[in-house]
Amino acid sequence: MMKAWTIKKPGGIEQLELVDRPIPEAKADEILIKVEATAINRTDIITRERSDLTKPYPILGVEVSGIVEKESESHPELKIGTRVAGIVNRGAYAEYAVIPANRAIILPDAISLIEGAAIPEVFLTAYQTIFWLGDLKLDDKKGEKTILIHAAGSGVGTAAIQLAGRKIGGAKIIATAGSDRKLALAKELGAAVTINYRKENFAERVLEETDGQGVDLILDFIGASYWEQNLKSIAVDGRWILIGTLGGSEVEDFSINSLMQKRVSLHATLLTPRSDDYKAKLTEEFSRIILPFFEEDIIQPIIHSVLSFEDLPEAHRQMEADENTGKIILTID
Amino acid sequence: MMKAWTIKKPGGIEQLELVDRPIPEAKADEILIKVEATAINRTDIITRERSDLTKPYPILGVEVSGIVEKESESHPELKIGTRVAGIVNRGAYAEYAVIPANRAIILPDAISLIEGAAIPEVFLTAYQTIFWLGDLKLDDKKGEKTILIHAAGSGVGTAAIQLAGRKIGGAKIIATAGSDRKLALAKELGAAVTINYRKENFAERVLEETDGQGVDLILDFIGASYWEQNLKSIAVDGRWILIGTLGGSEVEDFSINSLMQKRVSLHATLLTPRSDDYKAKLTEEFSRIILPFFEEDIIQPIIHSVLSFEDLPEAHRQMEADENTGKIILTID
Repeated sequence: MMKAWTIKKPGGIEQLELVDRPIPEAKADEILIKVEATAINRTDIITRERSDLTKPYPILGVEVSGIVEKESESHPELKIGTRVAGIVNRGAYAEYAVIPANRAIILPDAISLIEGAAIPEVFLTAYQTIFWLGDLKLDDKKGEKTILIHAAGSGVGTAAIQLAGRKIGGAKIIATAGSDRKLALAKELGAAVTINYRKENFAERVLEETDGQGVDLILDFIGASYWEQNLKSIAVDGRWILIGTLGGSEVEDFSINSLMQKRVSLHATLLTPRSDDYKAKLTEEFSRIILPFFEEDIIQPIIHSVLSFEDLPEAHRQMEADENTGKIILTID
Repeated sequence: MMKAWTIKKPGGIEQLELVDRPIPEAKADEILIKVEATAINRTDIITRERSDLTKPYPILGVEVSGIVEKESESHPELKIGTRVAGIVNRGAYAEYAVIPANRAIILPDAISLIEGAAIPEVFLTAYQTIFWLGDLKLDDKKGEKTILIHAAGSGVGTAAIQLAGRKIGGAKIIATAGSDRKLALAKELGAAVTINYRKENFAERVLEETDGQGVDLILDFIGASYWEQNLKSIAVDGRWILIGTLGGSEVEDFSINSLMQKRVSLHATLLTPRSDDYKAKLTEEFSRIILPFFEEDIIQPIIHSVLSFEDLPEAHRQMEADENTGKIILTID
């Protein structure tokens, strides 16, 4: 048996419950890992509250790092003892977890297991949105493209600034957030321009900073409340990647004329419900292209707090209170 | 001097005026053509009404076919006497017109000059939206993708059905229009399913015809009035190409949740304001890949009426009354 976090019933933090569950069985194309660290994601809170969940309630959590405990026949390179991290569909808040072998990121020695748990969800999401959907190229001319990144202090925001910015993607980053502390971090990570949306209209500032041209790419976690300002901020032939609705999802009257005149491409996306094949391809490409930048310390996972496994309720509280700048990690002794 | 159509002042059909103008001068990378036929486009009506136009008012018209009258140094293959067609920025309603040499489509013998004038705008637009923005591949497995084409009786609609359908693109076409006559033509051109939007809710029918999955691609000339039904009709990972606002441009409250859940890509586009390079590349690829299908009579330009040059007011009347199924052509003796 193993310790694992589930819920008494769907609801608030008080419903989280630490229980004993059987150690899961790995299928032929999966590996069993002894979990060393897990990270909190917003989707965990959504799952915790989902009133359509029925008993037996699942083990929560989608992101782990740990040591291979049982090998997969299909992937002999993942030997017992290999340090890995990755995204699972569920079951990450536990002492053991199974993960499809083709979704395991092998951690180089330079990356600790705590850092490893802080990488998969946010960096894979940022990589997918910037380089696959956002069409930024690693060999683009440096400084040629301008990218507007909202929620700059969030996990995906901090990852996106590092991947798109001068260190790797070479784009000029304009970052928005609601606190000067988050914006200071954004600047440190490579943002050229930072905008506190509580203090100024970001669209006006974006146009000022781009000689009236607007930005080539928007990474939008906000949705409805930024809709009009995003339309004003985007350049002709711009791409707008919609990956969150922190600012609501009900857009009031809008005119599609500005979409047409600017020939905007709007891509709505979520990583979690994508197919296993998609995630495997993304994991492979990310591991090959981006992990070396972590090894050389050119980019870093951004960690807000490291708590112990028993402190999951406190970890959820921090995320719900929007206290975190970067990832909240739990470690298992 | 030459005869050409301009306007007395911006306004209705009564403002059209046949005048004498100097024969235009071709620049180094342009060719002068003796116009044999020109075609009517909706953008001509918009230009005719544009209150911000100032004198001297331009020669209207954007689409021509004719004979090369003066060669371009940069394109020696376009010899005097070569039969060409193409899109010009303005000046097509005239006895002579200049066209950038890299935007001239050389007409094979099998295509008449009248047919030639009916091809460029609608087939280039359809090609761009289906194969470039819509991401349909010429080597896609036949019947694998389903495409919803609105305004099936329009010029671009009839071109799109032929290019995307079983003859070339291999997709299953669902076509909508407001008259049974237009839908009968759509069926003849290759649509598998036709829907009269005046008689039924197209979204319900689309879901019925796709086992509840929705369509992979929407070609949308309609805009606001179809917004909600398009959202219901589109499949997960579907692409939605917005190329017109015949149904208005003011979208009332909508929820971006369905965009997110279906991971929709929405591409707004217009061909006319694209760069010269873009149009040249599109012309080259279209000529190479699609013209052979015209030569073999696998696809055809759809012509509604052929009028003489003096009958431009009648031609505009037909388009404004939405009478045409396919192109309205004027010939010059």
